Amino acid sequence: MPKTSRVNDDLPRARPSRVVVELVRPLIDNGRFPAKASLGEPVVVEADVFVDGHDHIDAGLKYRPVGGTWIEMPMSPLPNDRWEGRFIPDTLGLWEFEVSGWTSGMASWMHALAAKADDGQDIVDELAVGIPLVERLRGRAKGSDQDRLDDLLAWLRTGDLVSLRSADLSDLIWRNEERQPAAKQDGKATVRVERERARFSSWYEFFPRSSVDPDHTASNLRGALDRLDRIEAMGFDVVYLPPVHPIGVTHRKGPNNTTGDHIEGPGSPWAIGGAEGGHTSVDPQLGTVADVEALAEACRQRGMDLALDIAFQCSPDHPWVREHPQWFKHRPDGSIQYAENPPKKYQDIYPLDFESEDWAGLWRGLHDVFEFWIQRNVSVFRVDNPHTKSFAFWEWVIPKLLADHPETIFLAEAFTRPQAMQRLAKAGFSQSYTYFTWRQTSVELEEYFTELSDETLDLLRPNAWPNTPDILTEQLQHGGRAAFVSRAVLAATLSPSWGIYGPAYELAEHHAVREGSEEYLDSEKYQTRVWDLDKPESLAPLLTRLNVLRHELAPLQHLRTLKFCDVDNPQLLAYTKTDPMGDAAPVLIVVNLDPEHQQSGTVWLEWADLGLPKHALYDLEDHLGGASFQWHGGRNFVELSPWGLNAHIFTATVKGCPPVRPLIRSYAAASANPESATPTSATPKSALTNKAEKGPHV
Amino acid sequence: MPKTSRVNDDLPRARPSRVVVELVRPLIDNGRFPAKASLGEPVVVEADVFVDGHDHIDAGLKYRPVGGTWIEMPMSPLPNDRWEGRFIPDTLGLWEFEVSGWTSGMASWMHALAAKADDGQDIVDELAVGIPLVERLRGRAKGSDQDRLDDLLAWLRTGDLVSLRSADLSDLIWRNEERQPAAKQDGKATVRVERERARFSSWYEFFPRSSVDPDHTASNLRGALDRLDRIEAMGFDVVYLPPVHPIGVTHRKGPNNTTGDHIEGPGSPWAIGGAEGGHTSVDPQLGTVADVEALAEACRQRGMDLALDIAFQCSPDHPWVREHPQWFKHRPDGSIQYAENPPKKYQDIYPLDFESEDWAGLWRGLHDVFEFWIQRNVSVFRVDNPHTKSFAFWEWVIPKLLADHPETIFLAEAFTRPQAMQRLAKAGFSQSYTYFTWRQTSVELEEYFTELSDETLDLLRPNAWPNTPDILTEQLQHGGRAAFVSRAVLAATLSPSWGIYGPAYELAEHHAVREGSEEYLDSEKYQTRVWDLDKPESLAPLLTRLNVLRHELAPLQHLRTLKFCDVDNPQLLAYTKTDPMGDAAPVLIVVNLDPEHQQSGTVWLEWADLGLPKHALYDLEDHLGGASFQWHGGRNFVELSPWGLNAHIFTATVKGCPPVRPLIRSYAAASANPESATPTSATPKSALTNKAEKGPHV
Repeated sequence: MPKTSRVNDDLPRARPSRVVVELVRPLIDNGRFPAKASLGEPVVVEADVFVDGHDHIDAGLKYRPVGGTWIEMPMSPLPNDRWEGRFIPDTLGLWEFEVSGWTSGMASWMHALAAKADDGQDIVDELAVGIPLVERLRGRAKGSDQDRLDDLLAWLRTGDLVSLRSADLSDLIWRNEERQPAAKQDGKATVRVERERARFSSWYEFFPRSSVDPDHTASNLRGALDRLDRIEAMGFDVVYLPPVHPIGVTHRKGPNNTTGDHIEGPGSPWAIGGAEGGHTSVDPQLGTVADVEALAEACRQRGMDLALDIAFQCSPDHPWVREHPQWFKHRPDGSIQYAENPPKKYQDIYPLDFESEDWAGLWRGLHDVFEFWIQRNVSVFRVDNPHTKSFAFWEWVIPKLLADHPETIFLAEAFTRPQAMQRLAKAGFSQSYTYFTWRQTSVELEEYFTELSDETLDLLRPNAWPNTPDILTEQLQHGGRAAFVSRAVLAATLSPSWGIYGPAYELAEHHAVREGSEEYLDSEKYQTRVWDLDKPESLAPLLTRLNVLRHELAPLQHLRTLKFCDVDNPQLLAYTKTDPMGDAAPVLIVVNLDPEHQQSGTVWLEWADLGLPKHALYDLEDHLGGASFQWHGGRNFVELSPWGLNAHIFTATVKGCPPVRPLIRSYAAASANPESATPTSATPKSALTNKAEKGPHV
Repeated sequence: MPKTSRVNDDLPRARPSRVVVELVRPLIDNGRFPAKASLGEPVVVEADVFVDGHDHIDAGLKYRPVGGTWIEMPMSPLPNDRWEGRFIPDTLGLWEFEVSGWTSGMASWMHALAAKADDGQDIVDELAVGIPLVERLRGRAKGSDQDRLDDLLAWLRTGDLVSLRSADLSDLIWRNEERQPAAKQDGKATVRVERERARFSSWYEFFPRSSVDPDHTASNLRGALDRLDRIEAMGFDVVYLPPVHPIGVTHRKGPNNTTGDHIEGPGSPWAIGGAEGGHTSVDPQLGTVADVEALAEACRQRGMDLALDIAFQCSPDHPWVREHPQWFKHRPDGSIQYAENPPKKYQDIYPLDFESEDWAGLWRGLHDVFEFWIQRNVSVFRVDNPHTKSFAFWEWVIPKLLADHPETIFLAEAFTRPQAMQRLAKAGFSQSYTYFTWRQTSVELEEYFTELSDETLDLLRPNAWPNTPDILTEQLQHGGRAAFVSRAVLAATLSPSWGIYGPAYELAEHHAVREGSEEYLDSEKYQTRVWDLDKPESLAPLLTRLNVLRHELAPLQHLRTLKFCDVDNPQLLAYTKTDPMGDAAPVLIVVNLDPEHQQSGTVWLEWADLGLPKHALYDLEDHLGGASFQWHGGRNFVELSPWGLNAHIFTATVKGCPPVRPLIRSYAAASANPESATPTSATPKSALTNKAEKGPHV
């Protein structure tokens, strides 16, 4: 029984475009979350744009700050139906973009004309086909385009094929082609544009209560002010302090994480809250809220940022325990549930209940903690263990804070499962701690940073730390000075953002509390220390040099262009970075991962990827060691030893050869033809040569 | 200046769940298109479901035919925050499903209780914590769950830890846990359930105008009826005929694709339309519409399907050229634009203009062609070059036809770029021709079929053809009989659907029209042939055996479970398949890809993946050659020669050991804990051991 109906056959209301736009990137969860972007870096938009059959198509990228005026630019075809466009956002906040594609009768006709002329066919008919097409373009054109189309019409009418074929008309066609119907991407694509520092930053962490004075005087926030000059001179631009709030006394922990009834010592800064106040108060031992404000202001005047540590947890002495008992879970006996990971107990900490009946009050209260410190010049927050707080809370609070204060930067201290880390990045965290600390072999590093620079590039910005107050890796415990050197070079050059737990790293502190633990002996988490930072063996000169190079060599400020090189010795890691803005020379880094032995090997370079000619003499300048080399060809010998600098940071240049600019829309007519794209290995060679050429099936 | 506001702070309206549900699979383009499903195969739904912190969670999968009644089942945790559920749809048409997740206070508490008891801690307090939790469950429970929860309460009150810990309560908790708030997936997930034959089919193509009678009598549709017994006996279930319509005379092509003014011969069936009619008429030389209907009915009575070839293009003599000139593009001189791929011309073919002003009329007209033949018992359509017709048209016409006739099957004859092939699959094509024909080395085959059985599994069902009337690969031209054997074994066992251009394959026809071409010499596309199918060297017995095994060995009817084995000889390809329904023994196939030399090597088997015990004696029965072997361990020797059968199709069994059922929800309490999942290499080992264990940051 036929059920078809002429009355309601569900035909689309308007004539649909034959063009398909799909697989747009960046597009996070079909547009539910914005992708990451920053000032000073192009947003690279890609999409599959294609049409049935052999017609030529064109594609455009529209973009604007949300609520602003659309700008549109032509996209360029890449291999295999992929198209690319780029824009450089110049204001903070949310931007949006949209890819569209359309068939181009003009481009198809011009291709046919050229092919027939080349084949020696009579093209009189073909010229006649073009006239109405050009006339229609002329009807839509404005300004000088009208004159150019008039010229084109004259050539057509006089059969001036030479002028016709020598003119580059792609921009003219792109602007004036009739786009009805055009296809648009599914899903609303947004990017959140943050400060350059959200992408490119160098963090220095220290405990202000510890002393750098050999006389062992205790330090505080005013003393921290005096340390800014030195940190600035080392090239760090984010000064990060562990929590500065009053510390609880109930179940306070002693040196080396000891517990007991009569603990002496200053306690852990992460046991937040005491009689003197909570998350918006300052430990009187350290100073006052005004001291924090002054320190933040001093950082700002130096072009640096002060980062506070936000740990949303409370000591039993925190004022919220009395003021908002409903924000905590209670046991049947009425007591508040302390933190547990059964069978372990953490009685000095009360976790907050993000699903409590008063969740709204709690969420607002936590929001106000950020707001309080933002009002006092703090622009960067390192958030402690965000993966143990509700993801839904972060999805609410970060966009809300950024809407009011788009210059704020959030670093997620989440060392946890991949999905949870990515969800925090989706929720809005600007940066994330990474597994870098435990990626140590060349295979591990290449695999992990390939993932970071490709799969999760639009989502998660890594911040690479060779050490933290919680993590002294076995490698640093036993690798000696060479391990500290290579890990610093790796962190500072693989990742646009890096950081160190400063005094311990400068002095290559490597004593663990016990074998098999990654905790420091006499950790500053539980006691004060005295650091003699002027020791001659200090790593400060190397750290300074790395930060200088990170500013001088623009490719180091980006992750997108990272590529690893083949090396025939797994103890050597080699990788290149180019400048996505196209201004600076490409960089090649080679690191010896072996802290004990000299290692040598052959490094293969993909010169084309670096925008350099294939057969030339390359000047390689080592900005770390200072030496210069001349290389020829893609295959070169490298030798590094732990008793030397153990790494090269080269720039590669060819005399008289400027760096190649990144892809800019080419207006060559044929380039808009997806069939002309080079097939990848996924495309059947025979299919393209035997079938696609044979036209309709007859 | 603070801009926060208490009045409108954009808080979610209701308390949001702390659980995240994301990366649901299958979900095509965020739900814009349904995923593929079929009767007799489980729909395997996966999602990332996780929560902040250490709480235990649970997850459920709801499913129904669209408009039907929801059924919900518990999902099972896989490693790394992934959860899985399965359902087996039992009616044709669109189904929908939804994944949700929630925190389980009961499961968290039970885990804590067990951990503390194991640690020797006093659990009196912990038992008290459980009582109100169980009472709340009891308040929601129905039927026998009430009794079980009463027992549980009694154990709690009496401190009967032994009973408590020995009971499997997961199902009880899953059913009765308070799910407020629960998190649900983004995006509406649908699957289109088709006949089993959409997934598992064996196609036999022949030209009914050619003869299988040594007396060279021409054949026709009535003669085709007489061939059904033989095709059925060979085990094929889709009988596919090239276009049966009247053939144009204008610019008709002659034998071996010759062109000219005075062509003799029957012409190409793809030059559709003549004085006798178009797409709903039958070439009088072949018979009548009633003959097609009778043939289709005869197929149906045998449990087979008749497949017609739908090529939406017209010869200049097609009735539509007069009746609907607006469906074609016109040149300035008023003539209709013939097909071109400049500079090539195909003057015997007029393409249809899918963006014409009368696009709606054209689309309806093409829809009615399908409808016409569906009314005449035709249930399968092999669509010619669908990638040269508007994707938007397919997205409209196929779902519309399937809504009226859900038993219809569409095969896309698209040998083109990956994106276009995938878009056709999204639009609704049940099956797609593949690049199998040109994937010939072990690396190529493994890479391609790994992609098909994983990345594009939910989207595109492959149909593997070793030959077609258009494609006689160089391998078959020069590989001799052994190449025909191995390509048939590969197609029939790698892909659940396969097909052959029958007479030419049975007789190992291998003469190309010229060196370097994949066209047959004296191709049936342009002339009739005589095939003596009773020749003793016919491959019919092998083809028959392959089809018998495809029915007897259930794993061959699926693609999802395909896994390739390591082999130390690249000329040998080895792969396994298991039965997703869990009923049949696993299958191991080994094929010698070298048509000229004997090849031997070692095959490694992953016994655990096959659901078999690791250290046992395995009975391997070769269903192709008939021999039996006993293997022990994962590493075994294989030798195959082109003068033998050149392939093994083994089933692997262990005496007294039934095949392992696929994953069923386990109710062990700890299994709901994402932290208990095995971390993959992407998870930092140190992070999980050092950090996750240490609880809050203090």
